[in-house]
Amino acid sequence: MNFRIRAAQREDCRDISRMIMELAVFEKMAEQATLSHEDLERDGFCTNPLFECLVAEVPEEDDPKVGYKLVGYALYFYTYSTWKGRCVYVEDLYVMPEFRGKGIGKGLISKVAQVGKERLCARLQLSVLDWNTSSLNFYVAKGAQDLTAAEGWHFLRFDGGALDKLANEAPKD
Amino acid sequence: MNFRIRAAQREDCRDISRMIMELAVFEKMAEQATLSHEDLERDGFCTNPLFECLVAEVPEEDDPKVGYKLVGYALYFYTYSTWKGRCVYVEDLYVMPEFRGKGIGKGLISKVAQVGKERLCARLQLSVLDWNTSSLNFYVAKGAQDLTAAEGWHFLRFDGGALDKLANEAPKD
Repeated sequence: MNFRIRAAQREDCRDISRMIMELAVFEKMAEQATLSHEDLERDGFCTNPLFECLVAEVPEEDDPKVGYKLVGYALYFYTYSTWKGRCVYVEDLYVMPEFRGKGIGKGLISKVAQVGKERLCARLQLSVLDWNTSSLNFYVAKGAQDLTAAEGWHFLRFDGGALDKLANEAPKD
Repeated sequence: MNFRIRAAQREDCRDISRMIMELAVFEKMAEQATLSHEDLERDGFCTNPLFECLVAEVPEEDDPKVGYKLVGYALYFYTYSTWKGRCVYVEDLYVMPEFRGKGIGKGLISKVAQVGKERLCARLQLSVLDWNTSSLNFYVAKGAQDLTAAEGWHFLRFDGGALDKLANEAPKD
């Protein structure tokens, strides 16, 4: 299939925001997705961006004058391992359902891996829901290790009132 | 107990590196910890640092002239949620065994939460090994949700040859 992967531009944020919501609906947690496209513009397209993003686009066949249509994205940032140094973390990888099975998801994750290697990252990491077996199988087939299954890593979160309470208990300087 | 928490300085990297290795030994993966204190100095104390770090220190009772001794650290960085925006991730939280049970770990995590709130983070996140029940219980008692148990999130990693292979398969620009 004719598709192209490129770095996201500020103008893509409306489309990325639409796809973020599509992914949240698929993950059955749409009510948690409260970020706007303006937030993405502010956070990703500034002097020290909080994330980087790749988009996949295909020709807009219904109306060639429109040009291209965004059908997938990979949003990632850099983390740090005290054992291995800089790593890249893929927060979201998404391809619209009607464009799956054409190598677009594979192209996106491979491109993030390439960018990560160029930035000297020792690891590419991500999280997947255990019932999302098609994604799990996809990543494992490409060589990913499931560290929750292999080593027992659990993912913990403080937010809302629990985070407020924790912060309020900090010792005085 | 008389302890103090402060931002790490470049001169602390030898001590932090020692404690990173102590934590890796406890986690039974010492062979994976290959970062040097020079790497920490380069990555954490530059114009755009890859991480931030807090240290806990106690008076050096054997020799008061030495001043303070580092007995714990919390190393963290900022991540990005496409649902909630900026978050803080605690890569390591460690207190030397002989100094546990005195509120130092609690002080470190609370201080990270405070810093995170100041930076408008909606979440504080971290990962724990499932057999490390004392740490799991500690975080859950403080209000953390175990998202692997509750929602089924698994943590995946590409590294070594699998990462090289993935990067080499990236589509050409």
